[in-house]
Amino acid sequence: MWAGRRVEELPTPTFTVDLDVAKRNAQRMSERCRALGVSLRPHMKTHKTLEGGDLMTGGTRRRIVVSTLAEARFFADGGFDDILYAYPLPFDKVDECAALAERLESFHVLVDSPEALGLLKRRNLSLGKRWKVWLKIDCENGRAGLRHADPAALDLAKAIAEGATELAGIYAHCGNSYHCHGVSEIQSVARATTLSTLAFLNKLQQAGVACPISSIGSTPSCSHPVPEMAKLQEVHPGNYIFYDVQQMMIGSCQLEDVAVRVLTRVIGHYPHRNQLLVDCGWTGLSLHSLGQLPTGYALVEGHPSLKLVGMTQEHGKIEPISGKLDFTKYRLGSLLALIPYHACATAAMHPLYYIHTSGRVVATWKPVRGW
Amino acid sequence: MWAGRRVEELPTPTFTVDLDVAKRNAQRMSERCRALGVSLRPHMKTHKTLEGGDLMTGGTRRRIVVSTLAEARFFADGGFDDILYAYPLPFDKVDECAALAERLESFHVLVDSPEALGLLKRRNLSLGKRWKVWLKIDCENGRAGLRHADPAALDLAKAIAEGATELAGIYAHCGNSYHCHGVSEIQSVARATTLSTLAFLNKLQQAGVACPISSIGSTPSCSHPVPEMAKLQEVHPGNYIFYDVQQMMIGSCQLEDVAVRVLTRVIGHYPHRNQLLVDCGWTGLSLHSLGQLPTGYALVEGHPSLKLVGMTQEHGKIEPISGKLDFTKYRLGSLLALIPYHACATAAMHPLYYIHTSGRVVATWKPVRGW
Repeated sequence: MWAGRRVEELPTPTFTVDLDVAKRNAQRMSERCRALGVSLRPHMKTHKTLEGGDLMTGGTRRRIVVSTLAEARFFADGGFDDILYAYPLPFDKVDECAALAERLESFHVLVDSPEALGLLKRRNLSLGKRWKVWLKIDCENGRAGLRHADPAALDLAKAIAEGATELAGIYAHCGNSYHCHGVSEIQSVARATTLSTLAFLNKLQQAGVACPISSIGSTPSCSHPVPEMAKLQEVHPGNYIFYDVQQMMIGSCQLEDVAVRVLTRVIGHYPHRNQLLVDCGWTGLSLHSLGQLPTGYALVEGHPSLKLVGMTQEHGKIEPISGKLDFTKYRLGSLLALIPYHACATAAMHPLYYIHTSGRVVATWKPVRGW
Repeated sequence: MWAGRRVEELPTPTFTVDLDVAKRNAQRMSERCRALGVSLRPHMKTHKTLEGGDLMTGGTRRRIVVSTLAEARFFADGGFDDILYAYPLPFDKVDECAALAERLESFHVLVDSPEALGLLKRRNLSLGKRWKVWLKIDCENGRAGLRHADPAALDLAKAIAEGATELAGIYAHCGNSYHCHGVSEIQSVARATTLSTLAFLNKLQQAGVACPISSIGSTPSCSHPVPEMAKLQEVHPGNYIFYDVQQMMIGSCQLEDVAVRVLTRVIGHYPHRNQLLVDCGWTGLSLHSLGQLPTGYALVEGHPSLKLVGMTQEHGKIEPISGKLDFTKYRLGSLLALIPYHACATAAMHPLYYIHTSGRVVATWKPVRGW
């Protein structure tokens, strides 16, 4: 019902995606990977929509990563295949994983423990299929995965490659790139992760264990790849389709690359405390910047002197960074555009995205949620 | 499909509600209001479900508060009436408010500016109906509302009471009670808010302006009401149906009154960094405690020595507050129950709530979302 209307007419708060920017982000990442000679297996977790998946796969609907089974089912239902569920195999979801493995051409699971592998070994797939299993290694990121230099990692890789399971790939997430400031720090993490992954692959090869795919990822590292990454088969970034203020501050992108906004309207003037209220609280933006930006919880587009200083469930408080607010510039009912700190978190708060080109709505996208 | 099953069998992460505790919370609030001689107009924003609304209204489906128009439509569709949309009238939603005002017996809107009132005055309702308008006053809370002692508040009340609009009530939110520690501080805020509201009503009366309802609210103040509140007509708390760790720390409730949990499973052991991973990240819990609890982002039920130290989108990191973790106590696949810091925020992350009595699932509730 909104197609053809201006985004300024949308009810607020609302999550908008600039389609041209998102397309450009997707194309640039594809071109970067092509130039590097690696395949792109984009992560769907940021947008969780079929349409976003189309942009990121160039319409092939093949070779994606998901972080929940709800996403896996959603994309499978949408005609996607070659889906990697890149999450330490949850013990309560083995049967559902088996159903997807039996139904799809390629459904990949991931493990980082012998116990999880044991569950797969005990759960035979129909049609003589073998489980496609990836090993998660930890290259100084410190979340999931066996440490790349830990002998247990090599042992687990060998065990995966035996019997009813096959070693489909090695997966490393360089989430530590999120602590970087600037391209040089990002590339240092990208290089370290790549070299650790390649060293592990080398050990695998020496042990005679075949492994068709090695994949590392994170939007910062894949936005500024290092030449060493050409020796990998794949990368798996996700956030880059939208980018956000966090990525800009890390150095992954420029402000003009951020495709998403939360539109909000002024709902109150409170001159005695030099504040205005807007109709976007944490249900519309999330609390993810923790208010730590110089501009508070977000950037207010075109108004660098404004600070979003606080949010409750449905209210946001805005005041000037310094000085007196000129309320005549922000009349009641007028629109402001917030540039989110963390697009994944903000997108997760919205049941529908409004997609526009040059400010005119061309589509709505409905993300999957849950697990 | 889950009815009759144990909550321990549910796929994780999952949001559970102990129906007996929620019922008891609802009943106690009703009894407290009855004893005080004030009506209860419960706020729906925490749970956003018809079933929760039934509990809080004692099945009457009358006299509720909502904070979004999506909630207003949802509850109206569900047979609720006497709905107060207690939010500074958004300029883009006047037509939708009119539709609800025309359709329901009583749909109330709220204003805190002459501009918003002007919009209502210019939008006639069909059937000769008059807009039922509440004035929002600010009694030292510092969010929306005209300050109770500001002459502009009295002027606006008078203007509401003229012509096509009627002054249906005065509304104050004592959100400043969220900064309290302990019953005495809570009651001090409750008393101050009540006295300011009553003083404003007195001025209204002296000016010859009739106002049938005065209402204040917040879960802390209504959990420990002061005798002065008996002079009000209504109170409008909301969170109390679930309560949470924040309310417990404020002093609104005891731990045993918290009806909600996020169930999560152990998905990884990382002895080298003394941590385990669980399958609940910020999509399942929110970041609302900001990690500031002694136990991090939540309480881990039955494990006071554990701390949820970090969360990413789908992962939570748990470590002991001190000492070495005994991993044999937390085997892979085993279940932990997180007690949320902010139930409103955690509930907002879940498309479905699993309702249980004594650990056995009896129903699922589906909340409304969006705006």
